[in-house]
Amino acid sequence: MIRKLTVSAPGPGLHEITREVADAVAGCAVDEGLATLFIRHTSASLTIQENADPSARRDLESWLARLVPEDDPLWTHTAEGPDDMPSHVRAALTATTLSIPIVDGRLTLGTWQGIFLWEHRRARHSRQIVIHVGP
Amino acid sequence: MIRKLTVSAPGPGLHEITREVADAVAGCAVDEGLATLFIRHTSASLTIQENADPSARRDLESWLARLVPEDDPLWTHTAEGPDDMPSHVRAALTATTLSIPIVDGRLTLGTWQGIFLWEHRRARHSRQIVIHVGP
Amino acid sequence: MIRKLTVSAPGPGLHEITREVADAVAGCAVDEGLATLFIRHTSASLTIQENADPSARRDLESWLARLVPEDDPLWTHTAEGPDDMPSHVRAALTATTLSIPIVDGRLTLGTWQGIFLWEHRRARHSRQIVIHVGP
Repeated sequence: MIRKLTVSAPGPGLHEITREVADAVAGCAVDEGLATLFIRHTSASLTIQENADPSARRDLESWLARLVPEDDPLWTHTAEGPDDMPSHVRAALTATTLSIPIVDGRLTLGTWQGIFLWEHRRARHSRQIVIHVGP
Repeated sequence: MIRKLTVSAPGPGLHEITREVADAVAGCAVDEGLATLFIRHTSASLTIQENADPSARRDLESWLARLVPEDDPLWTHTAEGPDDMPSHVRAALTATTLSIPIVDGRLTLGTWQGIFLWEHRRARHSRQIVIHVGP
Repeated sequence: MIRKLTVSAPGPGLHEITREVADAVAGCAVDEGLATLFIRHTSASLTIQENADPSARRDLESWLARLVPEDDPLWTHTAEGPDDMPSHVRAALTATTLSIPIVDGRLTLGTWQGIFLWEHRRARHSRQIVIHVGP
């Protein structure tokens, strides 16, 4: 089964989508199986990270933004603005696809795991995620 | 269903394989499902990135080559040459496996997304990718 | 089918789990299909890397530890100790999920590929991996 999710990301950082994904999976009524997420963009990505303390995701964003800064003289792909090329690199270093097993109809996420859309562009973007759920 | 793809990578950088993967998936005649790519190497990887402007992939390669240079005194695994260990690190930072949902018999890639083999070694290499296609 | 694997990681670095995963997959008696691994933690990750020469995995660990050090003044998420936040970043840069096709009842790993749990915390941890095996 295929489900589609549209997420409005207000700006850079990790935006939690655990509940939206869990709801989509629950609607598929698969008792045991696999859910696979795919983000249809090259300047935003997916990650599974700690969802307990917001400081963890702030530090993740700050660290990656510093590793891949906007003002790097190396960039030649600059037509879409200074945040374009760093966004591609940050997306390449994180995940475009994630697969999570389903047991008893639920995602087998660990206690502290949340699913996040990691937005890398500065402006608000509407992002599409396709979810495949199979037995 | 399983399909095998062999790609001759002439040297470092992102080599587009979108058409080869799309053709392999089309040959499986799966209307709705999931395609999973797996690269059988530890010094080359996979990525989904922008396929419109070649400058984006050149910048990706330049940035990663600078982050993980050949002449790092940290390397002890040097038997296969100076480009061996950086290739392993670059592969570990990118993807060995990718999963893309199929809808209406086609990969649900976004408008600007292409699938790439990311070669990290200097010399020409023949690289094997295994594709699993399921409903 | 779902299999669960618990790995006791004695400390930071790459701990090979190829045999444990291969045994779990063999027990599923799937001739052709896909095995997907999912680690239920945010401070340990998964990787497929060279399993021939131990120096390769030592260099991987040294390089990543230097890129994401404990004593970075950027960290604000420090409640669990100095190795907590670097562990999250290192996990985000590597893989939480991996999918490997199965042919003739066996994982299609390349000649030099091994599957590793990459532990990022200093102390011994018991880590849970869920494996989904489907046709």
